[in-house]
Amino acid sequence: MKTYNIFTNAEESLPEGKADFLLAASVTKTCEIEGITQAGIPGKIAYTPTLDAEFISTQKLFSMPEIAETPSGVPTPALITRAVHNLTPFSTIEILDLGLEISPEQTQLHTFEITPSESIATGAKIDAKEVFQKGMAFGKSYELKGNYLILAESTPSGTTTAAASALALGYECKDDFSSSFLHVPDSIKTKTLNAALSLIDKDMSNFEKLSIVSDNMLLFCAGFLVEASKRFHIVLAGGTQMAACLLIADALREDILMRIKHDNITLATTQWVAKDKHSDIAHLLSLLSYTPRALYTTFSFKNAEIPVLKKYDEGEAKEGVGAGASLAYAFSNGVDNEKILNEIELIMYTM
Amino acid sequence: MKTYNIFTNAEESLPEGKADFLLAASVTKTCEIEGITQAGIPGKIAYTPTLDAEFISTQKLFSMPEIAETPSGVPTPALITRAVHNLTPFSTIEILDLGLEISPEQTQLHTFEITPSESIATGAKIDAKEVFQKGMAFGKSYELKGNYLILAESTPSGTTTAAASALALGYECKDDFSSSFLHVPDSIKTKTLNAALSLIDKDMSNFEKLSIVSDNMLLFCAGFLVEASKRFHIVLAGGTQMAACLLIADALREDILMRIKHDNITLATTQWVAKDKHSDIAHLLSLLSYTPRALYTTFSFKNAEIPVLKKYDEGEAKEGVGAGASLAYAFSNGVDNEKILNEIELIMYTM
Repeated sequence: MKTYNIFTNAEESLPEGKADFLLAASVTKTCEIEGITQAGIPGKIAYTPTLDAEFISTQKLFSMPEIAETPSGVPTPALITRAVHNLTPFSTIEILDLGLEISPEQTQLHTFEITPSESIATGAKIDAKEVFQKGMAFGKSYELKGNYLILAESTPSGTTTAAASALALGYECKDDFSSSFLHVPDSIKTKTLNAALSLIDKDMSNFEKLSIVSDNMLLFCAGFLVEASKRFHIVLAGGTQMAACLLIADALREDILMRIKHDNITLATTQWVAKDKHSDIAHLLSLLSYTPRALYTTFSFKNAEIPVLKKYDEGEAKEGVGAGASLAYAFSNGVDNEKILNEIELIMYTM
Repeated sequence: MKTYNIFTNAEESLPEGKADFLLAASVTKTCEIEGITQAGIPGKIAYTPTLDAEFISTQKLFSMPEIAETPSGVPTPALITRAVHNLTPFSTIEILDLGLEISPEQTQLHTFEITPSESIATGAKIDAKEVFQKGMAFGKSYELKGNYLILAESTPSGTTTAAASALALGYECKDDFSSSFLHVPDSIKTKTLNAALSLIDKDMSNFEKLSIVSDNMLLFCAGFLVEASKRFHIVLAGGTQMAACLLIADALREDILMRIKHDNITLATTQWVAKDKHSDIAHLLSLLSYTPRALYTTFSFKNAEIPVLKKYDEGEAKEGVGAGASLAYAFSNGVDNEKILNEIELIMYTM
């Protein structure tokens, strides 16, 4: 228990101009554990990143006729990202296939010969170093189209693998991770984490540990950040998963003898994550060896006509597919809450 | 829509030492409007401040056999305050009768010849100036026992009268007020506010407006703060109601040619208020002519054995009877979350 000042709202902003939007789309078979995530259709969770990729790229779905939604009917945050693109377009939308089961159609797709990782409950079976290095190589070669880059993710059950990764690296952050659930299924998540952590021991190197408990999105993006942050500004689009990505890169600085150029990175998320009572992104970020730039947006569905959207304000879904960074991007380009809300509802009405 | 820095958690603390605890207990008949509050037993809401007073003073109830609770069974925040007193006692607990229907038994009671105010929907019928002056006089004469004073409140439907008061004084804060509900009954509250505001016009003086739309707790405490803040430190214990109290004192500075010594005041509340998505205490406080000291505590019922207590973490009840300030008081006296939780559950098991 602590006491904090209420006056904590200092304004923070994104860089000016247009941004490239990259979606790191990945499947960890951890998502097949029943009840661990609600980011998608039960039994078909592995389709979620594919559908998210198709939807933000084309506003259509090819691999399955329905947009991914939670069992309570809350649609994927991809809707928010696409609505923003319609109002104030990104310079490009590109997809990174970091281990998808189903390849997305009609997208600008980058592939890296990465396959879905296994469930961390029995060991992810990743070559963490290799995936990290693939991220570094891409960070070195990626050609920026706009003024800066937004790096987003779609990885169902990714908060569980993120928590396992940070815990395996020795960070004290057991209660800090978010979830797509309003009522978080602590027992399933805790059991999975405990099973994963029982597979590692303290004599292993960081890369060895991460090969067992992490996911391809986290490792690739961590590597990407190390190289790309030398070259241009990156907005890391997400909540506690992206915070874990920074923690991984920070922990590995001794292993790779390189570190992120953190002045060139801004984490951007939603207020649903920043103000979540079941997680603590501020604490996660405080564990870094530097003070990162990080912001959240106050966008709300308070005035939504479509009732299910209000569930976001109550804590369902919260973040993903770059929703928070997209909202901040819209804001910095002069698009307000009302316009975004109208565009989201227009997309839903016409689907 | 705005974007804010996530790193906003600067630590803030209470003064050192023991505190006197004063409860400003009051009834506004606004609480009789069906569905406007859940701070008490339906049909008997006016008993709530009396029962809160008895309970924090004695850990017993005399005027009714059951402790006030919401219809969903969430017990009054008085439980939190009493648990803290058992663990790290206040120098004194005293009750201010600011218009109670039923006088509390076995308490140290101060009376001021103040009767319950009427419903603001048809006009509160208070002499605002007289009540304010009674508060000033008490602020001048009160003899401090400990090192500083905690001023708390129990006023069912008080967030509605607080909103009406601030709006009547011209503050732009329509969406800023909290509620004891998780799902706020906007329509009942809005109708009541509109009815109250239709009774005033802009030619009226501030005191005239407040006589129609305010409540005795707000007016008395605002007056008390003006005088008492010259003499000792006061922790204003509460959420948006106590923020409104500061706004009232600030707005009246031209009328009374005096102002609060704000360095001597700290508003203290719970994280359930500070992080509430349906209200905005930080915005309310930003409307003051000065930057106030204000803090919240991170106490949580996450590990509660009694399930109904967890509803606080979900947004029921939130604050009242000085719960937030009591938690901060416990924390500054070295009592942790676990000890408070255990004491609260012990009290509940033995009732």
